[in-house]
Amino acid sequence: MRLLTINAGSSSLKFATFKLGDAEPVCEHRGQLSGIGQGTAKLSGIDWATDNLKLENHRDAVALLLDRLEVAAVGHRVVHGGTRFTAPVTVDAATVAALRDLVPLAPLHQPHNVAAIEAVAAALPHAPQVACFDTAFHATMPEVAARFALPEKYWAQGIRRYGFHGLSYEAILHRLGDDVPSRLIVAHLGNGASLAAVQGGQCIATTMGFSTLDGLVMGTRAGLLDPGVILHLMRSEGLDRAGLEQLLYHQSGLLGVSAQTADMKTLVESDDPRASLAVEIYCYRIAREIGSLAAALQGLDALVFTGGVGENAAPIRARVTEAIRWLGDVDVRVIPTDEELTIARHTQSILQGRLLG
Amino acid sequence: MRLLTINAGSSSLKFATFKLGDAEPVCEHRGQLSGIGQGTAKLSGIDWATDNLKLENHRDAVALLLDRLEVAAVGHRVVHGGTRFTAPVTVDAATVAALRDLVPLAPLHQPHNVAAIEAVAAALPHAPQVACFDTAFHATMPEVAARFALPEKYWAQGIRRYGFHGLSYEAILHRLGDDVPSRLIVAHLGNGASLAAVQGGQCIATTMGFSTLDGLVMGTRAGLLDPGVILHLMRSEGLDRAGLEQLLYHQSGLLGVSAQTADMKTLVESDDPRASLAVEIYCYRIAREIGSLAAALQGLDALVFTGGVGENAAPIRARVTEAIRWLGDVDVRVIPTDEELTIARHTQSILQGRLLG
Repeated sequence: MRLLTINAGSSSLKFATFKLGDAEPVCEHRGQLSGIGQGTAKLSGIDWATDNLKLENHRDAVALLLDRLEVAAVGHRVVHGGTRFTAPVTVDAATVAALRDLVPLAPLHQPHNVAAIEAVAAALPHAPQVACFDTAFHATMPEVAARFALPEKYWAQGIRRYGFHGLSYEAILHRLGDDVPSRLIVAHLGNGASLAAVQGGQCIATTMGFSTLDGLVMGTRAGLLDPGVILHLMRSEGLDRAGLEQLLYHQSGLLGVSAQTADMKTLVESDDPRASLAVEIYCYRIAREIGSLAAALQGLDALVFTGGVGENAAPIRARVTEAIRWLGDVDVRVIPTDEELTIARHTQSILQGRLLG
Repeated sequence: MRLLTINAGSSSLKFATFKLGDAEPVCEHRGQLSGIGQGTAKLSGIDWATDNLKLENHRDAVALLLDRLEVAAVGHRVVHGGTRFTAPVTVDAATVAALRDLVPLAPLHQPHNVAAIEAVAAALPHAPQVACFDTAFHATMPEVAARFALPEKYWAQGIRRYGFHGLSYEAILHRLGDDVPSRLIVAHLGNGASLAAVQGGQCIATTMGFSTLDGLVMGTRAGLLDPGVILHLMRSEGLDRAGLEQLLYHQSGLLGVSAQTADMKTLVESDDPRASLAVEIYCYRIAREIGSLAAALQGLDALVFTGGVGENAAPIRARVTEAIRWLGDVDVRVIPTDEELTIARHTQSILQGRLLG
């Protein structure tokens, strides 16, 4: 019996296939469809003849996968579960509606996740689908950590810190098994980046907030920003919402500071002082946020690096490790993340529940 | 020879008078004119007959003071010195123009500071005036701490962390004299609130950023806020700049969370769970930011509380002190601030330089 996992972005769709396993699902293939809705699409990671591939939309992309793979169930990465979904759920029509209601909380990501779910439902109406949320891991955060100091009505409207990268954090905690240090920070450093403070296996604080803009410096996102800067850009530069979104999501972060690239490997190897500055700010802000999260944890026992940069950029790990020496004897580790396996594991577990139930 | 210090707000003007002293100026009076431009004005702190006082504007307010006090020189608190003014300066016409150029960086405060300077210049054209900047103390921050991860052109435009409450921090460092601990955090907790990290007597990081909105929870300001929240409020609530300014400067913070008051004493004594939550978030965020600044300092030797809340709210100090026990043996002190004395000291020093020079 084969599971398919789907992580749908605006023009790409990452997927993986798994066979049901005894303890946990076993991965067969991992791949990606890119260029969806952009003329010529590309498939990587799996060896199918796909010359002149055209994929109008997620429905086409999903149809291609379901045509060639015999899939019994599908697990999806869904960026936002709001306050309602704090664990994976089987998807039905009501769930899809609820996920669509959450689009305003993640307007740039959630619609693609929903589109992929609907595409599978249209093609394989009887296959069970499971939605796995990037926010769910953080549902254990206390109100004091989740709340912005805004009037209560905004809290009631769901304007709060949610946190993201939860499927990655779950993968790390699963890998640690029974060996989860009591005061742990996991640094998920990829295109997006965040830190999670984990106490006794539960998230108590994270650097990403309401949106994926908050916290650390990222490839093209600024992270932490004084709200007064946004008011100033509106007043003095006449930037509107679309202009601010473009600036803060796509033109800032490592790319903005270096004026070159968001690619960490290129920056680390560059002699340009702007590239060095970008790397320096990136590491400085990680170190500052580790201090802030250590305050929530009342100290720090272990730091785990994961994600593309966290797993591969040794110079970044070395700088951060050096910068946190003041915290004492911290066990620093590198653990590869596997969000697809987290999704497959949840999906298998829900399927087995259904078979048993 | 008498010095006058002026701290001009939108509808109020705090003042103090000092006599030149041997080592430092000696305070005679401290007072405040409030209700400027609001029908009936009020004078407090000095015992003059002022029934039915009307003050149209800062010019009227300044005229009242200069009429009754024989003033030889005036020192002003100026909120923003930009990147140009990193120390107090004697004010001339060119300085006034430069201060006016900085209005876009502090549109809610700078115009009142400039208005007071112009009012004194009109009434007492030959009296020397000295501008003392709330940002100047932070000019020693390294670029890595001052810079947002935005494209370089914004840095060139002066969009950076400046930091505020500098006159208060200077007052504390002056009080500490030769006894400045090597890794020090000063917590200025008043209506506004910020922390400064001081290493070897120099500021290396602070929680307030480009504007006075950033960092800690304040009386009516939210402090740290995910930029995505602002984009969401624009998109979903249709808030424009004026609406955002109103929300973030005047309706958030302790007032917003408690739905009652920005007054810490009232909140600490209240049984309302929303009041307790407001206090809890306030202290939690101070503790988190102390962790973040401790990372910049590579540890912490001493914490000084100052400002109205910092000096008077023992329960707040107790909670924060408890929350930072994980940092080890930190020397926690309370030192009253005196921004007027800082201004008078700078003014006397510049006057004496002129007399000697």
